[in-house]
Amino acid sequence: MKKSKVTFADIAEYTGFSKTTISRYFNNPDSLTLENQSKIAEALEALDYKENKLAKVLANGKTEIVGVVIPNLYMHYYSDILNQLISTYEKYGYKFIVFTGNENPDAERKCIAELLAYNIEGLIMLSHTIPSEELKSYNIPVVTIEREDKFVCSVNTDNYMGGVQAASLLVKSGCDIIVHVNGDLSEEVPAFGRIKGFREFCESSGIEHRVILTDLGKNFEENHDRILRLYNELEETYPDKNVGVFMPNDTHANILLNIIFRQYGRLPEKYCIIGFDNSPISREAIIPISTIGQQVSVMADSAMELLVMQINERRKRKPTQIHEPVHKVITPILINRETTHLGRIR
Amino acid sequence: MKKSKVTFADIAEYTGFSKTTISRYFNNPDSLTLENQSKIAEALEALDYKENKLAKVLANGKTEIVGVVIPNLYMHYYSDILNQLISTYEKYGYKFIVFTGNENPDAERKCIAELLAYNIEGLIMLSHTIPSEELKSYNIPVVTIEREDKFVCSVNTDNYMGGVQAASLLVKSGCDIIVHVNGDLSEEVPAFGRIKGFREFCESSGIEHRVILTDLGKNFEENHDRILRLYNELEETYPDKNVGVFMPNDTHANILLNIIFRQYGRLPEKYCIIGFDNSPISREAIIPISTIGQQVSVMADSAMELLVMQINERRKRKPTQIHEPVHKVITPILINRETTHLGRIR
Repeated sequence: MKKSKVTFADIAEYTGFSKTTISRYFNNPDSLTLENQSKIAEALEALDYKENKLAKVLANGKTEIVGVVIPNLYMHYYSDILNQLISTYEKYGYKFIVFTGNENPDAERKCIAELLAYNIEGLIMLSHTIPSEELKSYNIPVVTIEREDKFVCSVNTDNYMGGVQAASLLVKSGCDIIVHVNGDLSEEVPAFGRIKGFREFCESSGIEHRVILTDLGKNFEENHDRILRLYNELEETYPDKNVGVFMPNDTHANILLNIIFRQYGRLPEKYCIIGFDNSPISREAIIPISTIGQQVSVMADSAMELLVMQINERRKRKPTQIHEPVHKVITPILINRETTHLGRIR
Repeated sequence: MKKSKVTFADIAEYTGFSKTTISRYFNNPDSLTLENQSKIAEALEALDYKENKLAKVLANGKTEIVGVVIPNLYMHYYSDILNQLISTYEKYGYKFIVFTGNENPDAERKCIAELLAYNIEGLIMLSHTIPSEELKSYNIPVVTIEREDKFVCSVNTDNYMGGVQAASLLVKSGCDIIVHVNGDLSEEVPAFGRIKGFREFCESSGIEHRVILTDLGKNFEENHDRILRLYNELEETYPDKNVGVFMPNDTHANILLNIIFRQYGRLPEKYCIIGFDNSPISREAIIPISTIGQQVSVMADSAMELLVMQINERRKRKPTQIHEPVHKVITPILINRETTHLGRIR
């Protein structure tokens, strides 16, 4: 029967090197000659040595594990980001322990405590209940994505530009009045930039506009009820105008589109709709929805790059403290489909 | 300045116990009296001791980590299952390292090797490229979900019953001919049961039916082209019949619904559609799609229960080998919405 665990002693015996040399091979291979490195490598193969990462971790502190805390995986945007983060394994070699926080700060703190107990090398936060000042106090590399990020490094979409792009497309599509619907967001949240970009574009170009900041609810039924009410109000208020609506995301844009489409059997010329994210629902809707696309794979890659930079800095003998957090901003992409007139004419 | 790491020696000094006693507290607490346990617990709090899970793991072998390999997170079904698995943390305490395999067996083998190097306690496989015989050979607790499972424990939906439920609803909805579209699946894949259930129900009840086994493509554009061709063929072949179509999943059911709805401005009486999974798209479609719901949260919980059972068995001094793998089957739920006549009448 094959011996179940090959030890350093076995490798030493097989190669004739000391156990110290074998240990150096694993923890500081460059301290051995190339010839000796390859002798040991051959021995590992001959002995069918199974690497024990955990033992290695205790020796050099590199777990190669990154913790990820997301609010949920129901919203397609989060599962998209997570998918792209996990795909960076090929490039960066980091593994991911994933938690969902479910919008509960105490649950999220418990998750983070668990992650710290596993000596994670860094933390990527999509959940937004824990302030960045607290995240900074954990004293490990942190990158946040699309949430409040004052005290830590972050990757966000250029939401301001997204707001400008959306408003500009609605105007070019011939709308008389353009409306932006969003949550009543704090100015510290990156998505607030959309409201600002939309408003400032309209004000500087003298375009009739309206910003409706309201909670659209937490599930499909609530979303549907509130967007139906919103639609009825728009119908009553602007019976003779072409109305362009910029919704906070594609899920909500799809609900509005369905309400109008069921009413008319099509999307009438009177209405234009634009969403945000470019999530699959925007393509799979009754007609393809124009949207502001977040470059999710670029965001995931940038987040890992920023995290690995911090991790590597810490490994240096004399780490340079990064005093100012780095905030990377990714340009969104305007995707012109059939719910805006320019897309319909095509 | 606070000392960064509290050691066993510090705890021993603070409590007056020996280091051996402190070590026993962590690795075999029941060997101490309750009084001594609580003295040490108080000391840990006073000293602000941070648990080092990795050190503990080397002592007792319990990493509390489960590996998960999924094909991708684009399909809403997979992100739904992953969400539910991660949520079992509250109940079972296991953390998840997640990989996506991207339908590449060598990439999946590399992921599994990585996971084994982290001494994971068990493996949950949704990816389907590696045969269950190979999974068994890794000699760790394994549970598969909705894939070939001959040699390992598994959790699957009762696909046969799902096929019967779908056929039966289409017949009750007054369809003259009922059609099931699916991939050309191997008999070893659980989803093959749907085809079997559909066919046997129709044959035993003498119902005119057709099974179309064809590859619908790997992305939205391919899906759309092939489903459009399929729809045109149905229109030509059955101009005067009421046609009921059972699609392989809700994503594909939604594409068919949109094609018909755009053609007619509504879903005409002539057509009934039923999907599979009860994924969000089935609710968010232009009209709510009838579907066979997989009980995803029950499946995730059952998978963990089955995995934990195997893990606990291994920890016993004299483990009983589980010779026959356990296959749990979860009943699907018929969800009657507006794309079948019974739902429309409501």
